Amino acid sequence: MNTIHPAERVLMGPGPSPVPARVLRALGAPTLGHLDPQYLAIMDETCERLRQVYRTRNPLTFPVSGTGMAGMECLAVNLIEPGDEVIVGVNGVFGGRMKDVMERCGATVHALEAPWGEVFTAGQVAAALEQHPKSRLLALVHAETSTGAHQPLEGMADLAHRHGALFLVDAVTSLGGHELRVDDWGIDAIYSGTQKCLSCPPGLSPVSFGERALARMDARKSKPQSWYLDVSMLRKYYLSGGGGGRVYHHTAPINMTYALNEALAIVLEEGLDARIARHAAAHRRLRAGLDSLGLSYIPRQSLHTLNCVGIPAGADDAALRRRLLEDYGIEIGAGLGVMAGKAWRIGLMGHGATTRNVDLILAALREILRPSTAG
Amino acid sequence: MNTIHPAERVLMGPGPSPVPARVLRALGAPTLGHLDPQYLAIMDETCERLRQVYRTRNPLTFPVSGTGMAGMECLAVNLIEPGDEVIVGVNGVFGGRMKDVMERCGATVHALEAPWGEVFTAGQVAAALEQHPKSRLLALVHAETSTGAHQPLEGMADLAHRHGALFLVDAVTSLGGHELRVDDWGIDAIYSGTQKCLSCPPGLSPVSFGERALARMDARKSKPQSWYLDVSMLRKYYLSGGGGGRVYHHTAPINMTYALNEALAIVLEEGLDARIARHAAAHRRLRAGLDSLGLSYIPRQSLHTLNCVGIPAGADDAALRRRLLEDYGIEIGAGLGVMAGKAWRIGLMGHGATTRNVDLILAALREILRPSTAG
Repeated sequence: MNTIHPAERVLMGPGPSPVPARVLRALGAPTLGHLDPQYLAIMDETCERLRQVYRTRNPLTFPVSGTGMAGMECLAVNLIEPGDEVIVGVNGVFGGRMKDVMERCGATVHALEAPWGEVFTAGQVAAALEQHPKSRLLALVHAETSTGAHQPLEGMADLAHRHGALFLVDAVTSLGGHELRVDDWGIDAIYSGTQKCLSCPPGLSPVSFGERALARMDARKSKPQSWYLDVSMLRKYYLSGGGGGRVYHHTAPINMTYALNEALAIVLEEGLDARIARHAAAHRRLRAGLDSLGLSYIPRQSLHTLNCVGIPAGADDAALRRRLLEDYGIEIGAGLGVMAGKAWRIGLMGHGATTRNVDLILAALREILRPSTAG
Repeated sequence: MNTIHPAERVLMGPGPSPVPARVLRALGAPTLGHLDPQYLAIMDETCERLRQVYRTRNPLTFPVSGTGMAGMECLAVNLIEPGDEVIVGVNGVFGGRMKDVMERCGATVHALEAPWGEVFTAGQVAAALEQHPKSRLLALVHAETSTGAHQPLEGMADLAHRHGALFLVDAVTSLGGHELRVDDWGIDAIYSGTQKCLSCPPGLSPVSFGERALARMDARKSKPQSWYLDVSMLRKYYLSGGGGGRVYHHTAPINMTYALNEALAIVLEEGLDARIARHAAAHRRLRAGLDSLGLSYIPRQSLHTLNCVGIPAGADDAALRRRLLEDYGIEIGAGLGVMAGKAWRIGLMGHGATTRNVDLILAALREILRPSTAG
């Protein structure tokens, strides 16, 4: 039968991002058992590296065995009990999705809304907490992948904590690419994905839970509705508890853990500050080039990692993206939700946030937009 | 930093099983985007191969983005609504786990119980359905990984359907290693794992839903409690619907799909019948050898893929398994649940169901058991 020979695309969409050869090699290393001491050592090391990248000392920091959205669901099912009131910032697809996920957990969700592309101010968040004082948690999307908006997070935890609410964050498109300080910023629970700024293939969702979140889980009256994502059981596998006892829960995705381990090693070798600066520099270079092509950013406060720009009037969205893919080997993202047909999303994530990639996409856009802007 | 250099273990536990080099190589192929036409073609092909291995024509046959237990949960959250009565066969850890998962979905679970190691007769199943005539589904574990018991399935669907109940099957440790005919046997929904008899690393859970299951899902009054596993959305991504339109749901685990595609190619190249016969032959060879060592099987109807034997009196369970791992590089499984400390579980799955592996484990057991049986 035919074997897998995927093209080597330049991945500049909203994820997956380009995966370094080192990570692909680690992915293909021989499979160990999930209770093998060698594997447990690799997993412990992976969790420790995740703590460094999240800038947290939370013991309960580990990769959920699913893609980023499994991480979102993991936080929701463990931290929400039926009847809880919660506040979710909704200014794009992913905030809306969090609302849906939390409603399925039986929560009454107060959606704090903003136009797509906008972010929330501390004043707006404080007002929402005043208006819904019984809210058990506040959830914000740090990097709204559907709009490219960059939500400031500093100070938000204090507002939430003042009302006895936990502070939850979606960091799928920011971890490893933007400044993010879980402990300094008082974030109680957070999730991300491997396939964005960590430049590991999709398949795992790194999460971290702080003390307040643990206390909330310990005080639950009901079991989480998901067995697969039940942290009260997962923690017995991921945290040995000092005595070395590990309780089997499910068969962990062994090879994906290898890949994440290696991807995190690359992040830490570069250094978080240098990596974040590299993303910023790539973004500035791209922005200047897009400006010169007459393409405008949609969000006022744009992410460095995801660049959401309006499609020029008269341009054929699908045809141009297909040309980029087929003729130049470059993948960019279509608009999502209300932005479908109106926006392009250009990712500069992890291994792909380079001068080389910026210059490639600008050269390609310059060429393919010429006829349509001229015509 | 150090890189990943896992030992090349002989994996003869309850999974993961040994992964062929071809599959590891596919796993490490360049990552594509989840909406790239090349990736969609690979995914479609993977689903078609899954249909062949499941012996089904169910269009809705795809790998859930999580390990085997995510597949279990996927069936439960989509096919159960709060208040439903269901019947679950509980004769080991995995039947018990299904009960837990279904209760978390709001089901009233009637546990049909049998001693660990036993299986259920058609008469027992029929009696349970008579006793609980409102049951909406009947769920059985084909291959109980905790006890090695091999549950016959033929005829069970008719019993369930006569009462208007769906028939659900856990095939985690049988798919690709034991006779399993989804369509001929009338199975309405089924899940498995990649890391057992398919010899792919853990991380995906192949599922299949038949027409009755689809009708049940279409008639739901409430959303499934899991967004991540909601088949009403997943089907818009996995089934293009003929028009070519694909709706993004979550970022699929691209590289794991490559690996599964290749693993299934290997299964189909060998041929299902030949593969099942190979598992049977390996089991017979192992059984004869274990007999000669005085080790007895625990279940009366043993799986070929998982061989659960009593630990000899006086043997030090943990020390002997550690010796097997450290001195011989062989992993076998400990007893699970009530079998902890009483049983060993020897897997002969997929790539590992070979004469070579049988002879290796028998030679090692002969050597390490000598002092303890002599002493």
